[in-house]
Amino acid sequence: MSVLDLLDYAGVAVFAATGALSASRKQLDIIGYIFLASITGIGGGTLRDVILGATPVFWVKNPLYLVICASVGVILFLSSHRLDSRYRALVWLDAIGLSAYCVMGAAKGLSATGSPVVALVTGMLTATFGGILRDLLAGEPSVLLRPEIYVTAALTGSAVFTLATLAGLPLIAASALGIVCAFIVRGGALKFGWTLPTGKAGPGRNPDDVL
Amino acid sequence: MSVLDLLDYAGVAVFAATGALSASRKQLDIIGYIFLASITGIGGGTLRDVILGATPVFWVKNPLYLVICASVGVILFLSSHRLDSRYRALVWLDAIGLSAYCVMGAAKGLSATGSPVVALVTGMLTATFGGILRDLLAGEPSVLLRPEIYVTAALTGSAVFTLATLAGLPLIAASALGIVCAFIVRGGALKFGWTLPTGKAGPGRNPDDVL
Amino acid sequence: MSVLDLLDYAGVAVFAATGALSASRKQLDIIGYIFLASITGIGGGTLRDVILGATPVFWVKNPLYLVICASVGVILFLSSHRLDSRYRALVWLDAIGLSAYCVMGAAKGLSATGSPVVALVTGMLTATFGGILRDLLAGEPSVLLRPEIYVTAALTGSAVFTLATLAGLPLIAASALGIVCAFIVRGGALKFGWTLPTGKAGPGRNPDDVL
Repeated sequence: MSVLDLLDYAGVAVFAATGALSASRKQLDIIGYIFLASITGIGGGTLRDVILGATPVFWVKNPLYLVICASVGVILFLSSHRLDSRYRALVWLDAIGLSAYCVMGAAKGLSATGSPVVALVTGMLTATFGGILRDLLAGEPSVLLRPEIYVTAALTGSAVFTLATLAGLPLIAASALGIVCAFIVRGGALKFGWTLPTGKAGPGRNPDDVL
Repeated sequence: MSVLDLLDYAGVAVFAATGALSASRKQLDIIGYIFLASITGIGGGTLRDVILGATPVFWVKNPLYLVICASVGVILFLSSHRLDSRYRALVWLDAIGLSAYCVMGAAKGLSATGSPVVALVTGMLTATFGGILRDLLAGEPSVLLRPEIYVTAALTGSAVFTLATLAGLPLIAASALGIVCAFIVRGGALKFGWTLPTGKAGPGRNPDDVL
Repeated sequence: MSVLDLLDYAGVAVFAATGALSASRKQLDIIGYIFLASITGIGGGTLRDVILGATPVFWVKNPLYLVICASVGVILFLSSHRLDSRYRALVWLDAIGLSAYCVMGAAKGLSATGSPVVALVTGMLTATFGGILRDLLAGEPSVLLRPEIYVTAALTGSAVFTLATLAGLPLIAASALGIVCAFIVRGGALKFGWTLPTGKAGPGRNPDDVL
């Protein structure tokens, strides 16, 4: 099993856990846990494979991913009420998943196309798409619109991995570097409330007042 | 025309009707009815085909599906105000579509991969995705988050069909059994308010109070 | 560079600008601008390519599209506060993008399948999907649900282009005709509040009062 395979399993498992935590926050039944865990766990990678034309997608070729998602859903159905704060657990697990998945997505994009720009984007998209889907489906306020740095962390990890790979580092070193950098950026944002400047624009008015 | 073809047309038509009913609830114009009818009718099957790599997707190969969706949209534009409760009609038609489509999705997943786990998931996803998309686009509260059993019904139908097929039943018998079981579960949930236990977890707090 | 290539770049750039304007209305950071600009700019074309099975999708084959999106995001990050009304700019740019993209989508659908019905739908879907995605991700009220004509404009442009092509007009004339007609319909709706009749249906009740 290669480094990328391990990363993929790890990313799927922690994203699945964030989906199950959303299900817990919405007080769904056990199938709701499994459903949101699966969608969140496999959503980002599914988008990546579809965009790159690598179909059937990864979990159709290897159903172990689905078994992981379902197991995570069941475990959290039985245990999530013991957590002090499910939302805090959700965002920290999401940070781990995002760090693993931006490297994963960049690696697949780079190996499929050779283009660093594409690698940046597949890394960014696949790391954030699972969480976006989870928030949309569970009716949670989107993590995209929160002030703390989010997409930037995925972009950082993708960029570091891509540059390190182009610089000739071996896969395992480039992956580790990318993951650590992404996690530092997102973890710092969560811990210390890091933000980037938002420009001079004020909030938008109601469409009905404008048109 | 095979059993699966008929199922597919039927599933598309009733899902299209639920989309048109959402358009009616939102007081859209006739193109809005046709648009939401089409998206809801073909959404689940499109996701299924894209995931399995069976592209171009089914309605590109056979535009009759689109004609069905558009016709359903027009018919409901002319008649939906006569319904006593459009939402009740919507959820019951959705129940029929879900029952047909979980079997359809499981059948395609099973024949494409031979894996029962994949069949379960393609059945569950394609039966629920049209309705999820409809609720997202129409700004309706998601049927996923309602307490009554929903995803579970799709999973039941997929599981029954898959097990019956593996047990050697002919396609038509396995399909009928899957559809009936899915409909009993979802119909019972609608009629009698069936729910599964939701575990010990309480509702989630506001993210701003937690982070 | 062909007419269709130019249309594609133009459509991507103006849709990217509408995404960046949404980011501005939500006071996101510069990466948020680039992210929403990219998703909105490439979303419709990505769906089109995935449905037609033309993968890897267009921006993986030609990363120039991504460079355009990112540049538009940066430009609007620096300048959007100077706009009198960002929402008005957003909907007018969206009208231009929609006009370019319905022709683009219809052209690709027609050349891939030869079916006018498919061309209508790929035109309609790909012209509206970027905006739908933008509104969903940015938590804006969906442009789909506003009373003014929207989807109808995309359908008009797709239909005019398709009919003109079938009637034997050269690509450039059919494209121009489709774009102009779509823009007249959408522009008129924005300027004069054009609507289509909404039928006799009243607004929907709350699901909880019905079930």
